[in-house]
Amino acid sequence: MKVIIIGATGAIGKHVTSALEKEHEVIRVGTKSGDIRADITSPASIENLFKQTGAFDALINISGEAHFGPLKSMTDETFRIGINSKLMGQVNLVLIGQHYINPKGSFTLTTGVLTDDPILLGANPSATNGAVEAFVRAAAIELDNSIRINAVSPTVVEDSPEYFSYFPGHIPVTMKRVVNGYLKSVLGAGTGQVIKVHSN
Amino acid sequence: MKVIIIGATGAIGKHVTSALEKEHEVIRVGTKSGDIRADITSPASIENLFKQTGAFDALINISGEAHFGPLKSMTDETFRIGINSKLMGQVNLVLIGQHYINPKGSFTLTTGVLTDDPILLGANPSATNGAVEAFVRAAAIELDNSIRINAVSPTVVEDSPEYFSYFPGHIPVTMKRVVNGYLKSVLGAGTGQVIKVHSN
Repeated sequence: MKVIIIGATGAIGKHVTSALEKEHEVIRVGTKSGDIRADITSPASIENLFKQTGAFDALINISGEAHFGPLKSMTDETFRIGINSKLMGQVNLVLIGQHYINPKGSFTLTTGVLTDDPILLGANPSATNGAVEAFVRAAAIELDNSIRINAVSPTVVEDSPEYFSYFPGHIPVTMKRVVNGYLKSVLGAGTGQVIKVHSN
Repeated sequence: MKVIIIGATGAIGKHVTSALEKEHEVIRVGTKSGDIRADITSPASIENLFKQTGAFDALINISGEAHFGPLKSMTDETFRIGINSKLMGQVNLVLIGQHYINPKGSFTLTTGVLTDDPILLGANPSATNGAVEAFVRAAAIELDNSIRINAVSPTVVEDSPEYFSYFPGHIPVTMKRVVNGYLKSVLGAGTGQVIKVHSN
């Protein structure tokens, strides 16, 4: 398969890349590194990405920003950081990518535990994750040619202790479990799923 | 209580208004009618609304647009109709309104059944609803002074047969049940809830 991985050099992305590259043709995409550079906040940059890759079999996005901060001082402007990146960036990868993906191909997006289990400072990532998960369920019933779409929703990962204090009581998961979530989406047959990689 | 109802003359809004106006001071808000005009897609218009109302006890929003159309022809531009109105419009009512609401006040937003149960043409309202529901859960744990926030999620309503064919197999609910959802949010004590008014 020809697999596009956006965020291929990130904390999770590098492990997903390494799990897939032995048996598949992986195209690494990043804002500052990778085989192709792309910025998911720009529809023109996404269109340009697919013009370079041509037809593909799987797209995995493990990139996208959201704003962490107190609700009390949050504004339209700071809230739109997540809207433009983690939400519209991922939506636009599908809206544009659907015109380039091969039959039986798959889209795999990334959300997170905050959709259903919020933390302080996390209203923006909660909202963007909730949007992407509902979008995945809705897009799954409209995509033609047996094209599939899922989201992987990790909680905090063992490898990132710097985030533990923001997630009190959350049980960190192993990177291996997170990577398996992506493999399930890409190599499995499910669609419209939110693959929850949570321990609690 | 001083209750602001945005969308007070809409199909659902007029019934919610009528259920509350006997015992409460209701301020009707709309884009083209009402005691005060406001456009929720504009943060400046929202700020201006609260400058006119002053402190209040409850805000109910039953307004907000989303885009219905085939995924295949959806674009960043059409998708942002729901992002700017039903999503950011409702988020901004809370981000700005939190600085005007009285202690023990409540915000009641509107989502819908499409968060979890999508229909064809509905990817945009699904995503906006999913975002608002996750935002409600996250905002509930940060709002100070016992301020509450909930969403009411109706399915198709008996009074709107023009929508039935878009919701095959969905069992329409009565307007009375929908109104009760809003009353539960405003007059009850729950917070962070999605009050589902669905029959199936």
